[in-house]
Amino acid sequence: MPHIEITNGLPGISGLLAQYPGTGAVLSQLAETLLRGDESPISRGERELIAAYVSELNRTRFCSDSHSAFAAAQLEGGEELVKAVLADAAEAPVTPLLKALLRIAAEVRAQARPVSEEAIANARAEGATDVHIHDTVLIAAAFCMFNRYVEGLATELPSDPGYYGSSAERIVEHGYGAAR
Amino acid sequence: MPHIEITNGLPGISGLLAQYPGTGAVLSQLAETLLRGDESPISRGERELIAAYVSELNRTRFCSDSHSAFAAAQLEGGEELVKAVLADAAEAPVTPLLKALLRIAAEVRAQARPVSEEAIANARAEGATDVHIHDTVLIAAAFCMFNRYVEGLATELPSDPGYYGSSAERIVEHGYGAAR
Repeated sequence: MPHIEITNGLPGISGLLAQYPGTGAVLSQLAETLLRGDESPISRGERELIAAYVSELNRTRFCSDSHSAFAAAQLEGGEELVKAVLADAAEAPVTPLLKALLRIAAEVRAQARPVSEEAIANARAEGATDVHIHDTVLIAAAFCMFNRYVEGLATELPSDPGYYGSSAERIVEHGYGAAR
Repeated sequence: MPHIEITNGLPGISGLLAQYPGTGAVLSQLAETLLRGDESPISRGERELIAAYVSELNRTRFCSDSHSAFAAAQLEGGEELVKAVLADAAEAPVTPLLKALLRIAAEVRAQARPVSEEAIANARAEGATDVHIHDTVLIAAAFCMFNRYVEGLATELPSDPGYYGSSAERIVEHGYGAAR
């Protein structure tokens, strides 16, 4: 049972965003900007994969399953590729650049410390620009917030197994709402 | 030296917000909503104190010193009270309710897990409503993002010792900008 009353019956962060629309609107806009904004050199599917990977490392089921579904819907490798990354990012069949960015994301998740020079140099060697590094660090940091919000308040998981798939269709088509 | 180029010469998150205005605007709006919005039952000074406390636990100097200055400028106890909370929140001369909220914030910071039933019950016993608990969890979670963004990219500290005081004057007067 959640620590606070959620009267809309929605699971995970969806219940919180609807129950607290003042903060909900700006959190939705942040997700839209980070994961779907046009200014990133990282594709939407790859950004969702970074979000899913961080959420999986944080063991936040709702966010990991949600963003895994959103990534799978927007990546050529689909669900199988997402599962491979979550199981072992270092060995998964993704580009060397994405692998280097996932490594940066894992370091950001672990603690509030500078990303190692080695991880940065590795990403640069694979073609990462400042914007790749910036966006990866900020997405990983943001999911340390979203995961804590969802877990900290003990929100519930969806009872409908089709929930994540339906969410994926809506997000891919219409975005996170409340955004430009 | 920061991991990415900051051409505006600003320290900490200020350099990042100015260098990346697309994400900067929504991050500023989030800070404004969480720390200064009118809908919270927690005072602005107390919300800044929660932000400073989480940043101190994360050992993120820039954020801890910034939000300590913003809290001190808006709390009756000023700098001395803020220092007491950062040194030992359990023994600091704050209300039992604020002490209970700081405890919740510390749990959220530590990991993405449900806040303990004990910490929630303790806060309820001191008068916490759902909104107190919601806002505390979200502020603590958000500073796990802000701290990682600032530290992960290895941003610099201000060279001017008066920097935080000037920032406090600006924030208290005008807010975090880019927000409603």
